[in-house]
Amino acid sequence: MAVDLKLSFTVVTIATAALVSSPQPAALAVPSDSGPLEQFDYETRYFRQKIDHFGFADNATFNQRYLIAYKYWNHNGGPILFYTGNEGDITWFCNNTGFMWEVSKELEAMLVFAEHRYYGESLPFGNKSFSNLKNLNYFTSEQALADFAVLIRNLKQTIPGAQSSPVIAIGGSYGGMLAAWFRMKYPNIVVGALAASAPIWLFENLSPCEGFYNIVTNDFLKSGKGCSESIKNSWDAINKLSSTAEGLNFLSHTFHLCSPLQATDVTFFKSWLSNTWVNLAMVDYPYEANFLQPLPAWPIKVICTFLQNPSLPAESLLQNIFKAVNIYYNYTGNVACLNISQTATSSLDDQGWDYQTCTEMVMPSCSDGINDMFEPMPWDLQSFSDNCKKDWGLRPRPQWITTVYGGKNISSHSNIVFSNGGLDPWASGGVTKSISDTLIAILIPEGAHHLDLRSSNKEDPVSVQKARALEVKYFKKWIEQAKI
Amino acid sequence: MAVDLKLSFTVVTIATAALVSSPQPAALAVPSDSGPLEQFDYETRYFRQKIDHFGFADNATFNQRYLIAYKYWNHNGGPILFYTGNEGDITWFCNNTGFMWEVSKELEAMLVFAEHRYYGESLPFGNKSFSNLKNLNYFTSEQALADFAVLIRNLKQTIPGAQSSPVIAIGGSYGGMLAAWFRMKYPNIVVGALAASAPIWLFENLSPCEGFYNIVTNDFLKSGKGCSESIKNSWDAINKLSSTAEGLNFLSHTFHLCSPLQATDVTFFKSWLSNTWVNLAMVDYPYEANFLQPLPAWPIKVICTFLQNPSLPAESLLQNIFKAVNIYYNYTGNVACLNISQTATSSLDDQGWDYQTCTEMVMPSCSDGINDMFEPMPWDLQSFSDNCKKDWGLRPRPQWITTVYGGKNISSHSNIVFSNGGLDPWASGGVTKSISDTLIAILIPEGAHHLDLRSSNKEDPVSVQKARALEVKYFKKWIEQAKI
Repeated sequence: MAVDLKLSFTVVTIATAALVSSPQPAALAVPSDSGPLEQFDYETRYFRQKIDHFGFADNATFNQRYLIAYKYWNHNGGPILFYTGNEGDITWFCNNTGFMWEVSKELEAMLVFAEHRYYGESLPFGNKSFSNLKNLNYFTSEQALADFAVLIRNLKQTIPGAQSSPVIAIGGSYGGMLAAWFRMKYPNIVVGALAASAPIWLFENLSPCEGFYNIVTNDFLKSGKGCSESIKNSWDAINKLSSTAEGLNFLSHTFHLCSPLQATDVTFFKSWLSNTWVNLAMVDYPYEANFLQPLPAWPIKVICTFLQNPSLPAESLLQNIFKAVNIYYNYTGNVACLNISQTATSSLDDQGWDYQTCTEMVMPSCSDGINDMFEPMPWDLQSFSDNCKKDWGLRPRPQWITTVYGGKNISSHSNIVFSNGGLDPWASGGVTKSISDTLIAILIPEGAHHLDLRSSNKEDPVSVQKARALEVKYFKKWIEQAKI
Repeated sequence: MAVDLKLSFTVVTIATAALVSSPQPAALAVPSDSGPLEQFDYETRYFRQKIDHFGFADNATFNQRYLIAYKYWNHNGGPILFYTGNEGDITWFCNNTGFMWEVSKELEAMLVFAEHRYYGESLPFGNKSFSNLKNLNYFTSEQALADFAVLIRNLKQTIPGAQSSPVIAIGGSYGGMLAAWFRMKYPNIVVGALAASAPIWLFENLSPCEGFYNIVTNDFLKSGKGCSESIKNSWDAINKLSSTAEGLNFLSHTFHLCSPLQATDVTFFKSWLSNTWVNLAMVDYPYEANFLQPLPAWPIKVICTFLQNPSLPAESLLQNIFKAVNIYYNYTGNVACLNISQTATSSLDDQGWDYQTCTEMVMPSCSDGINDMFEPMPWDLQSFSDNCKKDWGLRPRPQWITTVYGGKNISSHSNIVFSNGGLDPWASGGVTKSISDTLIAILIPEGAHHLDLRSSNKEDPVSVQKARALEVKYFKKWIEQAKI
């Protein structure tokens, strides 16, 4: 499970050389659950950004994409809700952040969704952006925050009526970390931030490394009798079967794999399964949704109906495991075969995030196989770093994020709401207790990954309704403060 | 007076091609007034810093010099007073910051003086550091702050007893700006900051551009009858005389210039005089001192004794002007001739600061010749930028500092004391009114440039004694807060 060392917000399996297959069609990225699309009526614009905010040798620029909507905006200094784009196409985040659209009317707010450099269309060196380390050198969270700051200053300088508009940063997941860090580093630019499902404490030794997989396990444990136990037992079953050619053949057929499983792929196959369970924990939403994949309401519960008997013989157990993962990969029933090099929407950029985990975003994770349903996987920084050296020709700096963004020592900051879902594995590195009366933690026990940022739904648990109401209350408070 | 467009903390005249003269002996840099040197007993150490904290393409390092003293340090978590080095050799700042040495005993504090990259011995590319824009690319305040943060984390991790030591940033002038910005950007690293004579608001349009020269003028106006008026009248006298070969000859002889004055040098000559007046305003200390040059107590008063009659004919007026500047350049009586390409100690690095003013540190200044004693000089960003393009091959980014460090919108920060001297022209861009009960302004009416950072002296005005006492009071408060 070496590839799991690189925690990803979508845990997209990284293709190894042995496994490279023909390109797959992009996963469905059109949101099915975000309300009518006409509601999300934005203009696409581009802003000329400096490629290097922190050096002067080169004055080169690139076009940063951003989406803007001002249907409900009060042109006389109304607030701006600013989405701090994360690791993917900004239109995808825009269409999956219905919360911002819904509150824009009440707050008379302008909406801006800014794309993160090196993702989507915002490529500093076009299709050469990932060609070499030199071109990749400006791919950091600090540069991204500087992009946001410079863009906001420009918007306020150029849009009539926006000069004194208070700006609130909003983001989910890595975008939530950026929102929080943006408020910490640029309190002159944003009056406050909503950091949804932002694991800002999943770095260095700030949180126990086993937390992430413990939450995933717990989600399955609570969703059906025998469920997590079945998954725990599946690893030995796979190990046993994959030791023979006949067993490999059985696995390939049982799992409807697009390419026959080789002995050398078994670790990768198990990693793909693990990542599937992790992704399910992230998107265990109370209604039918299509965030990473089209899925039924409470998908883990659905899956667990197939995993009630952990004591079955290897073959039967794995046939059930297939039925379970098939819900995740083929809920629509249109998928001909399963491709173990893909686990999530193609709107998220695995390559970009992989680079970021190999530079700044080192988030230790581990499993022990006892308190969780995964195979034991200790955290091994050296091996993690060696893999980065192999893959990218560089080594990560695991102490940097805690140095530059404060680690646990953030109490001197203000006006940040950290929201976390109780079902979300990323909550293991989140701020789940309020730090002060301006650094607020909101817990959504029935929530998965940033459920609060999604459009409201009649199946929403009360906890997320309350969370959203509280978030809006803080927005209003920050906007009021800014007027003083 | 085009060269004056680049405000420098020591306003060192920049040599033009026409004026390049043989290298001058270094100005005296040994502090004569900092108390016995044995008091300043430090170890010199070096720390391996990343050249680029904000990119990963290159993992190259350089040795950052720092000075450390722990004679009085409480080895059980005693505080660390950390000088955020500015534009010069760190030993010079160390030896001119007696205040830190004096309070180290009372606070049982360790002292650390960290050299700023690209100055002194801390050259990222050795003697090639200034060879090309590529090597200069890591010469920014953000990289310098990151150096400080990484160094402090390392000290706390490696010095037994320092793990929980609260760290206070202290700096004067540009070092004071760095101290303030350090607390703003890294409140996890430093519990508070003393920013002495730090003109953090001398950027963009945050302060009136005429403020700087108004204060200089006022210093001379108050120091003797006819004094500022004499200087104001001197420009026309120079213009008149320099229009003839005979007059140029008169000026060369009268001012004991090392090289005869050419018609093409006259602007530069006037700029050198202007800079001399500015430097005098900065070091108008109440006792004999040697900061930029060896000088008597209240040097402007001494100088003004020669400038009591502004109505003299041009020749006599300029003979008096010479007597005045001769106090500044030749108080010791050992100087054979005056060199108009040098105005201050060689411990400050003009070249480095010039680069910084052409990149981040754009501080608009202007004079109108009516409310000040200088020739009219409007602020002209375009011409400033064109000069930078000519000198360095790059253009400044005048909006960047206010974007990244907050401009006037800094009220959400905490634990910074801004001290300013009423005689100091840099106070025109300083924080001279408290912003909150944790962002404190201290005014020292009789103080020149960061007088409070100097060793105590029996001639110290009461205002600086009180300022230092208040500063120590805040240090103790921050140290106490850190224990909670």
